[in-house]
Amino acid sequence: MIRRYDYGNPYPSFAAVLDLPALKEAPPFLETETEGGEISFTLSLHNVDALYGLGEAVGPIDRRGRRYQSWNSDEFNHAEDRQSLYGSHNFLIVFRASEPFALFLDDPGRVRWDLGFEDRGRMRITSENGDFSLYVITPEEGTPRKGICADLCRQFRVLTGRSYIPPRWALGYIQSRWGYAGEEDLTAVARAHRERHIPLDGICLDIDYMDGFRDFTLNEKALPDLKGVAGRLLSDGVRVIPIIDAGVKKETGYSVYDEGHEEGYFCKKADGSDFEAAVWPGLSCFPDFFREDASRWFGDKYRVLMDMGVEGFWNDMNEPALFYSPEGLDKAFAEAEELRSGMMSHDSSFILTAAVDGIKNSMDDYRRFYHRIGERTVRHDKVHNLYGALMTHAAAEGMRRAEPDRRHLLFSRSSFAGSHRDGGIWMGDNFSWWSHLALHLRMLPSLNMMGFIYCGADVGGFGADVDEELLIRWIQLGAFTPLFRNHSALGTRLQEVYRFPKWKTMRDAIKVRYSLIPWLYSEMMHAILSDGLLFRPLGFDYPDDPLARAVEDQVMLGRQCMIAPVLAPHVPGRNVYLPEDMLLVRFRTPEDYDTEEIEAGWHYVRLDENEFPLFIRRGTFVILAKSGERTSDLSVEGAATLGWDAEDYVLPLYCDDGITFGAPDGHIVPIRMERDTEQN
Amino acid sequence: MIRRYDYGNPYPSFAAVLDLPALKEAPPFLETETEGGEISFTLSLHNVDALYGLGEAVGPIDRRGRRYQSWNSDEFNHAEDRQSLYGSHNFLIVFRASEPFALFLDDPGRVRWDLGFEDRGRMRITSENGDFSLYVITPEEGTPRKGICADLCRQFRVLTGRSYIPPRWALGYIQSRWGYAGEEDLTAVARAHRERHIPLDGICLDIDYMDGFRDFTLNEKALPDLKGVAGRLLSDGVRVIPIIDAGVKKETGYSVYDEGHEEGYFCKKADGSDFEAAVWPGLSCFPDFFREDASRWFGDKYRVLMDMGVEGFWNDMNEPALFYSPEGLDKAFAEAEELRSGMMSHDSSFILTAAVDGIKNSMDDYRRFYHRIGERTVRHDKVHNLYGALMTHAAAEGMRRAEPDRRHLLFSRSSFAGSHRDGGIWMGDNFSWWSHLALHLRMLPSLNMMGFIYCGADVGGFGADVDEELLIRWIQLGAFTPLFRNHSALGTRLQEVYRFPKWKTMRDAIKVRYSLIPWLYSEMMHAILSDGLLFRPLGFDYPDDPLARAVEDQVMLGRQCMIAPVLAPHVPGRNVYLPEDMLLVRFRTPEDYDTEEIEAGWHYVRLDENEFPLFIRRGTFVILAKSGERTSDLSVEGAATLGWDAEDYVLPLYCDDGITFGAPDGHIVPIRMERDTEQN
Repeated sequence: MIRRYDYGNPYPSFAAVLDLPALKEAPPFLETETEGGEISFTLSLHNVDALYGLGEAVGPIDRRGRRYQSWNSDEFNHAEDRQSLYGSHNFLIVFRASEPFALFLDDPGRVRWDLGFEDRGRMRITSENGDFSLYVITPEEGTPRKGICADLCRQFRVLTGRSYIPPRWALGYIQSRWGYAGEEDLTAVARAHRERHIPLDGICLDIDYMDGFRDFTLNEKALPDLKGVAGRLLSDGVRVIPIIDAGVKKETGYSVYDEGHEEGYFCKKADGSDFEAAVWPGLSCFPDFFREDASRWFGDKYRVLMDMGVEGFWNDMNEPALFYSPEGLDKAFAEAEELRSGMMSHDSSFILTAAVDGIKNSMDDYRRFYHRIGERTVRHDKVHNLYGALMTHAAAEGMRRAEPDRRHLLFSRSSFAGSHRDGGIWMGDNFSWWSHLALHLRMLPSLNMMGFIYCGADVGGFGADVDEELLIRWIQLGAFTPLFRNHSALGTRLQEVYRFPKWKTMRDAIKVRYSLIPWLYSEMMHAILSDGLLFRPLGFDYPDDPLARAVEDQVMLGRQCMIAPVLAPHVPGRNVYLPEDMLLVRFRTPEDYDTEEIEAGWHYVRLDENEFPLFIRRGTFVILAKSGERTSDLSVEGAATLGWDAEDYVLPLYCDDGITFGAPDGHIVPIRMERDTEQN
Repeated sequence: MIRRYDYGNPYPSFAAVLDLPALKEAPPFLETETEGGEISFTLSLHNVDALYGLGEAVGPIDRRGRRYQSWNSDEFNHAEDRQSLYGSHNFLIVFRASEPFALFLDDPGRVRWDLGFEDRGRMRITSENGDFSLYVITPEEGTPRKGICADLCRQFRVLTGRSYIPPRWALGYIQSRWGYAGEEDLTAVARAHRERHIPLDGICLDIDYMDGFRDFTLNEKALPDLKGVAGRLLSDGVRVIPIIDAGVKKETGYSVYDEGHEEGYFCKKADGSDFEAAVWPGLSCFPDFFREDASRWFGDKYRVLMDMGVEGFWNDMNEPALFYSPEGLDKAFAEAEELRSGMMSHDSSFILTAAVDGIKNSMDDYRRFYHRIGERTVRHDKVHNLYGALMTHAAAEGMRRAEPDRRHLLFSRSSFAGSHRDGGIWMGDNFSWWSHLALHLRMLPSLNMMGFIYCGADVGGFGADVDEELLIRWIQLGAFTPLFRNHSALGTRLQEVYRFPKWKTMRDAIKVRYSLIPWLYSEMMHAILSDGLLFRPLGFDYPDDPLARAVEDQVMLGRQCMIAPVLAPHVPGRNVYLPEDMLLVRFRTPEDYDTEEIEAGWHYVRLDENEFPLFIRRGTFVILAKSGERTSDLSVEGAATLGWDAEDYVLPLYCDDGITFGAPDGHIVPIRMERDTEQN
């Protein structure tokens, strides 16, 4: 059951698709406090309670004892104590012995979450705006305990809408790098994969494909004929996926700027002039996506590239990230001058560096511009966390208008609750660290709770230099995530798999992924169409097993499986906890794997560097298709089945054309276990 | 066997105490390459080889596949990809199936270590100076494989000298915080511990106790009577441990500066004038510790505080850290001005922040000043990595001169091979992160290989805000490390154990530590006096057990034990690998614990938050004394014995007065297992 409570004067909701009446009485469970415009909700916690949710955030899946802030941030350092990343996902499940419930704060401003940090016996959630809707969700009558968390997520999805449906090719392997400029890179990368039979379905273009980082333009020198190269690559099963940034270069004569400026589509300062801040193209203006006309205008721009054969985009810098504003720069220089002229005290160098570093993503700037929301003029910081969501919504709507029946790939860096209807997200600027490989795994179920079924992190790590062993293990995790993209930053070690001596080990893991795609796609579609989760914490499925609840380096995948990737260097295997009997499949290639029937409990599973495991629940099975180098090669015909005691299980395999919306031909093919392959 | 090979014109050695003749032939095992003044050594690696060593560094205990640089750095962010920390520890064990060996590069300049990062089949070690001595150490004839790594470390200690011997009280619990200013803090902290019966043997004073951060002065307002308060605290078993920084404030009238300036003790620029750079006191000069007279002069200054009853110090900022130099500041402002006047390009804000951030610890500054080494004038960057070692050597010598027969506590942030003779080290500015708790554990054996037996990290983490659960688990690890200091940074959450609701759980772990001190001290002294290791990787003791070699979240402690702390939040226990049968002791308090005889193999060990484990090898035992609140309370009388099948084991317990040097009364007390306590 979903109950709504309004506080102050809530901003128009982007997240909710259900228009529930706001109740007058006080919400259940929570103590409400008001102080200086802020509204806080507090709740006593017991040591056995688990707190799931908040989507994109560092730390454990069970957020208990941690501290967070909802404030969409261009944060390149996902350190353990960071409180904010790129998205604000104000949904929290309070899973406790009695009266478990979930809450959602539909608040586009800053929200502080103390989930037992100051006092482990108490959680405190604070809205700085004080204007928002609170939704309290309680489980449907009679839901068994092991279904409660999933049911709370399902109801949240009923409130916020069905998840985005990507085209099936989006489950293919995608190669990306900041630095790919155009045709030469696209052709070389595609060829390098095809020559080595490394599966590939897409290549991402980062900012360098544009003409001076101007949205919807092309770097004439590097990419004179996008349509041509996109067509040639597509004929080989490779899609080109360009990036679009939120900021529009301020430059008279650049049509996008001229239109936006003349039509008044950009965010304004108090004096009514366009707000300007520097991002990649230099001084830029920022479309006011809160305006229907501006949103429509920007969304239609994507057509410029779609008309050249582009079927997918990624939206970046849409927190929005701001390198500096002219005003911020003046302030920093003034402070620096003052320090310079005055006596340098012992810490003046810290003040100096802080002043200069402070020009980036500064609160002063976020308070410097305004949005038109209907009749209201709203200062940006009050609704900051919606900006990226609205940009991606504009893009999604634009593509729907352009090709109403066609699915497109779209994923964004910044997001808000409800963004899951418009596209997927990637986990932002991670590093080539083993700890970020583990973070990638932990964030999957948390993002699924928000409805972001199509998601993944930069495989291999964006920043820092990867080493071969880390990349191998990361590919082995990416093989299970819907968004499976190898991406790295300009200036870091080249990270395409074929750059490494053991590229064949990585290729084989990618080939296994392709063999699993028919099943993985089916499970993903089931999660989407049933408002369910593809990835779940073990605690969702085994709530009364304290060991299962404590395990955070394994996650449930689909209705049949559990994954437990190797997350450390130099190890011959890892400990895996089986909450129930499962069949271990130890993959080396789609053809070369062994299986082992393992009973519930702790087991040390040996895994050589070229091996990675999939655990299949006893009594179920999955199918393994003949692999291919492009998703279009894949067919269920003659697929092997992998399972244990699964003679009575019917695998409901979802099949459709993978490209149209609503998928009129979407249907379930009931699959039964093959006798022979069982004793593989 | 130790072989020496000289290259170029080696700088006088600080590390070696053995004066071996340099051999003319080429060194064994290694390929030598010379290129542009740099000298590199390369070696093929096999996948089964392990690379141990490099002391203070992030990453795994087995350094295989990683990349490092020896360059002493004031690095506050111990991220996974950092290549340098505060010390340079150029000792590496190449543990391979045949012909295992170790090497030591006695090179005070920058050394690059590619330990299989670029190519996992090859390691490459490069000296940028090209002037150094290389030592190649091979195992003594007939050393069993399980003794080889320890033997290579022992020989390295023969080469570099016996480890520093701390007073026994230094094994007590030490409370510290950047911000403690003087008498009020000292008294309050001591009282808060005593009132709650939380054991305490020392309190560290950070920079605020000084008068304007001037070395060897006192903050008259906060600390008018150090002698008085130190005496009062000492009578209660609490020592005051002040910090000393490397930089001397440049200020006429400040006697330390005046003396150093007049005598010419400070490092000079090319024009012969004193080199100046800002650190905590503002513009400062830096004693040229390479000069015997300057070293003696600075070392004798410690007496100022010793005469007030101080028995221990910690040396900081001695990489040396440099906030900025006037020249560096001018350069940064010039660059900023240029950017300002010119068109701001899209990345000019990065250039600006880089220019300003670059004033800190800049290579330009490290090339700006010179040392007198005998008759030679040497530019700092050539011998950079020795500066901190020489500062701590000056301090150690000063204390020896002041009180030749008395042990003092001394630990330093920066160090070099050989520093282990003069004092211990702490692991620098870590964060309140779970990953840094694990890093603390991994660094212990690596530091022991360098001879740093007295060492530890800031318990609870220096930077960021700790949460209660992390602090509890960190205290449970610190309970086993010789340096057991809770330290945190100004502005972070107060971290004294009594600030937290569950302070009793932490107190009990500290009490267990005190009960273990008689045994722990004995094992520490054994490691010191036998040139051995207190902490060892499992791979040292079980080289032919691939599982033991792969385990890096457990370490061997002393001759009898293994530790395996809980390193994750919200878990009811952890997996532990037993390479042989061991007795598990699950500690809650010194009086309340249970024991379990566990056979070799993997086991999930349940550990509630108030429990922490010690694993005792079958056939040995340890003693558990009656606990106390100060190390001086402790006695072996009536100590319990904890072991399994240990009737035939004789524990050689080292006892001495714990305070004098050479410990004339040092002797071994043979202890036998008590029958009764065995079946506890």
